[in-house]
Amino acid sequence: MPIIECIPNISEGRRADVVAGIVGAVRRVPGARLLDYSSDASHNRSVITMAGDAAALKAAVLALFEAATGTIDLRAHTGEHPRMGAVDVVPFVPIEGVTMEDCVALAKDTARTVAERFGIPVYLYEEASSNPLRKNLEDIRRGEFEGLAAKMATDGWAPDFGPTTPHASAGASVIGARMPLIAYNINLNTNRLEVARKIAAAVRFSSGGFRFVKAMGVTLADRGIVQVSMNLTNYEKTPILRVFEAVKREAERHGVTVLESEIVGLVPSAALVDVAMSALQLADFKRTQVLETRLRDTDNHESR
Amino acid sequence: MPIIECIPNISEGRRADVVAGIVGAVRRVPGARLLDYSSDASHNRSVITMAGDAAALKAAVLALFEAATGTIDLRAHTGEHPRMGAVDVVPFVPIEGVTMEDCVALAKDTARTVAERFGIPVYLYEEASSNPLRKNLEDIRRGEFEGLAAKMATDGWAPDFGPTTPHASAGASVIGARMPLIAYNINLNTNRLEVARKIAAAVRFSSGGFRFVKAMGVTLADRGIVQVSMNLTNYEKTPILRVFEAVKREAERHGVTVLESEIVGLVPSAALVDVAMSALQLADFKRTQVLETRLRDTDNHESR
Repeated sequence: MPIIECIPNISEGRRADVVAGIVGAVRRVPGARLLDYSSDASHNRSVITMAGDAAALKAAVLALFEAATGTIDLRAHTGEHPRMGAVDVVPFVPIEGVTMEDCVALAKDTARTVAERFGIPVYLYEEASSNPLRKNLEDIRRGEFEGLAAKMATDGWAPDFGPTTPHASAGASVIGARMPLIAYNINLNTNRLEVARKIAAAVRFSSGGFRFVKAMGVTLADRGIVQVSMNLTNYEKTPILRVFEAVKREAERHGVTVLESEIVGLVPSAALVDVAMSALQLADFKRTQVLETRLRDTDNHESR
Repeated sequence: MPIIECIPNISEGRRADVVAGIVGAVRRVPGARLLDYSSDASHNRSVITMAGDAAALKAAVLALFEAATGTIDLRAHTGEHPRMGAVDVVPFVPIEGVTMEDCVALAKDTARTVAERFGIPVYLYEEASSNPLRKNLEDIRRGEFEGLAAKMATDGWAPDFGPTTPHASAGASVIGARMPLIAYNINLNTNRLEVARKIAAAVRFSSGGFRFVKAMGVTLADRGIVQVSMNLTNYEKTPILRVFEAVKREAERHGVTVLESEIVGLVPSAALVDVAMSALQLADFKRTQVLETRLRDTDNHESR
């Protein structure tokens, strides 16, 4: 069975009953498995993580839009996090037995139905967008809900699906497909914030580093150390181990050592298998050699 | 759902129809999933790999004994591999959601039923054996089928279950529980066999190396290189990465580099996650952070 992950971000993080109602609507969809959800009150935003096949996830996202559109009104919404939709952004992520192309097709199909059924304008992003100026979420969302009507009237900003003006209470949504995002931090054996900042600048894309790394240096005040805090946005093309080794090497230039690293939240098994393959110089290793993967393959074979 | 692996070795590797009949008997047991099987004609032996929960695997092993006892007669058996039973050895291996103690209990329960139902003497081995002289398979099997009647009459060699004399055609069987065995080879950038042999001697238990490593040096004639060929018998206590790094260091002493390494056959995901954790200096990583593990946990939770 193919596994796709879907991580809708909704613009409600304060009214627990509203969030519970929306999560409950998702939970009732057969085949869509809720893995996690968390709310941030200062952001006034919640992140829902679910997984399933294409049909189940499309149904779950539609149920989510229905519940969110009925209970969230952006005209009364405040919060620290930028947003332009009641359902702000919906990424589909290929995990196993499914290609990026499958997720792009699912994103477009879901976007079209959302626009038709709820009258909400939808922008495609990342891999689902074929417009290079509209791949990046930040670019699409710039101006936020408050600036949306003006932006949509501008040349080049008609949505991919739906009306050319914002939904009165739900704004517009961004739906797309991307690789799994890995939240990865490396702690340094020093309290010198400038060292963490210099290393972050050395490894991140925006200042000349790796193509799929976002990074910043932060202080962990309670421990008296600093951290290079990163998002890895494509572990196949910029592998975790390569980033770790680069940070370690950069740290050495400052006479600093790596204390430890940490993965925050979920990570696909393939990303860790990649690390093991590199660390062991494994040649010709196939994912079907992982016992659990073989078991799952056997399951599928037998149920056919 | 707990996952146990079971890898019966049977003393037939030449008559394909007999092997197919025995494998077919296993395949018909609900819940026991056949992952692999392979026959070796010169060894005259076949290895069957299956997985499932305790009840399914017990039923599958009983079906295997019934089919094998009816078709294999050790009085007419020749082959290079040492053996003392038609079903020679049956290890149960904990993979996920199950402890070694569970596998020991399953081994004892299965051994008792095999002895009662088929009149075959059964020896417990490895973790299932509480007799330090009867933990090692080679020690139990020494003398083989031909020497079995005499050995069983010797002090200390009464079986754990069943009659104190061999079964006429099926000999005696060895059933137990052990950690997953990982077949792991490291190829060296040299054709000097003595280097591979010295490194093998340095890392294996029998000559002073790691507790859970068996190793030998061999030549890969077709590639003009040599290999350190290993069995890792407990990856939790002697991790793969530690062995790799030790071999690499030893190779350096001989002016040789590691070309690549390879895992032959199946490996539990946890062994590769361990490698990734060490290579990345990951602190506080939990197996439930692996997306696929979380998915499986969610499955189980929902089916309760």
